[in-house]
Amino acid sequence: MPISPSELLEALHFRYATKGFDPSRKLTPEAWAALKTSLTLTPSSFGLQPWKFIVVDSPQIREKLKAASWGQSQVTDASHLVVFTVRTDLTQQDIDKWISHLSEVQSTPLENLAGYAGMISSFTSNMSVAEKQAWNTRQVYIALGQLMTAAAVMGIDTCPFEGISPSDYDDILGLKNSEYATVVACALGYRSPDDKYSQAKKARFPEDTIISHV
Amino acid sequence: MPISPSELLEALHFRYATKGFDPSRKLTPEAWAALKTSLTLTPSSFGLQPWKFIVVDSPQIREKLKAASWGQSQVTDASHLVVFTVRTDLTQQDIDKWISHLSEVQSTPLENLAGYAGMISSFTSNMSVAEKQAWNTRQVYIALGQLMTAAAVMGIDTCPFEGISPSDYDDILGLKNSEYATVVACALGYRSPDDKYSQAKKARFPEDTIISHV
Repeated sequence: MPISPSELLEALHFRYATKGFDPSRKLTPEAWAALKTSLTLTPSSFGLQPWKFIVVDSPQIREKLKAASWGQSQVTDASHLVVFTVRTDLTQQDIDKWISHLSEVQSTPLENLAGYAGMISSFTSNMSVAEKQAWNTRQVYIALGQLMTAAAVMGIDTCPFEGISPSDYDDILGLKNSEYATVVACALGYRSPDDKYSQAKKARFPEDTIISHV
Repeated sequence: MPISPSELLEALHFRYATKGFDPSRKLTPEAWAALKTSLTLTPSSFGLQPWKFIVVDSPQIREKLKAASWGQSQVTDASHLVVFTVRTDLTQQDIDKWISHLSEVQSTPLENLAGYAGMISSFTSNMSVAEKQAWNTRQVYIALGQLMTAAAVMGIDTCPFEGISPSDYDDILGLKNSEYATVVACALGYRSPDDKYSQAKKARFPEDTIISHV
């Protein structure tokens, strides 16, 4: 059952970067399962899904990550914490793995997907490893956007964190020398009644200075 | 009224990269207004909103953009087409403009925001112009993610386009030598009953290979 335009607007106005989470309020298992699936279902260029998501349940690891996040309390207080990591390269092996999975899921012979595979190879063939990582990272931000919006329409609060030390996160999460690297994190849960930021007026440049019609 | 976990999942399974739009079906003015506002309300790092969105109403310009998009029919057939552009730099003037707007909207004296302004300046001071553009571009992808998810929960179809020539888009849209550059585009509307891709099984790597818990 789709939501109405006014319900969408209500959800988007409800959302804000929550500074104070209520540590006693947890997501229900059903709500968390749906948000977890929303990560998996994020669209990505060519369907490549150049990411892994790490959910940090351990209070001890959360404490360590907090120290790598300018001490922001959301890292430990929120119900859930997701670390978004990116595939640091895109090799022929990655492409083959994706095409083979697609072939299996959609019961399509590999030879029928050869054109698609060739398109991906050709699109990426002139990219340096750094450019591939940058491209993959942009896809990760689609996942971040989808997660925050999905949470908002479910009445769940989030706070994205770019103000972290990705390198320290990689150390803490054992990603050093792996094929993935930390990009950004997002806390999910419910706002504390004391979080004064929930009352702050949303500040956006006027619509007509940001959106034009041609 | 928040939606339930199962309604969220239904919306996310409904969404797919629509290849065939029904050219006769248009978004209602209310639906489009809400989606337009969803662009404006997209969260961004420090709230900087390093973007502009161009809505292409003109059929003539849509035709030109189609030629710069590998001839993909969605560019001309969809109800709406949004081009996402990014601020190609981030100067002290950009920061000052944002802080001054924030001060006005939230009725906060500028001196109370000096710490925040300094934090942004310091965060960005060691970035090259190319790094600033790359950082801004990642924020643009949050907007893309939010738009596609917002549309999906409203039962509206989308198709994102990375397979475009951003440089040709810039030419067609008069962005050359401006402070903004084309990043990505997104078509919105309603799927054609003939679009066979709407029946394709969604292919995603298994959740336990993409999401881990620590």
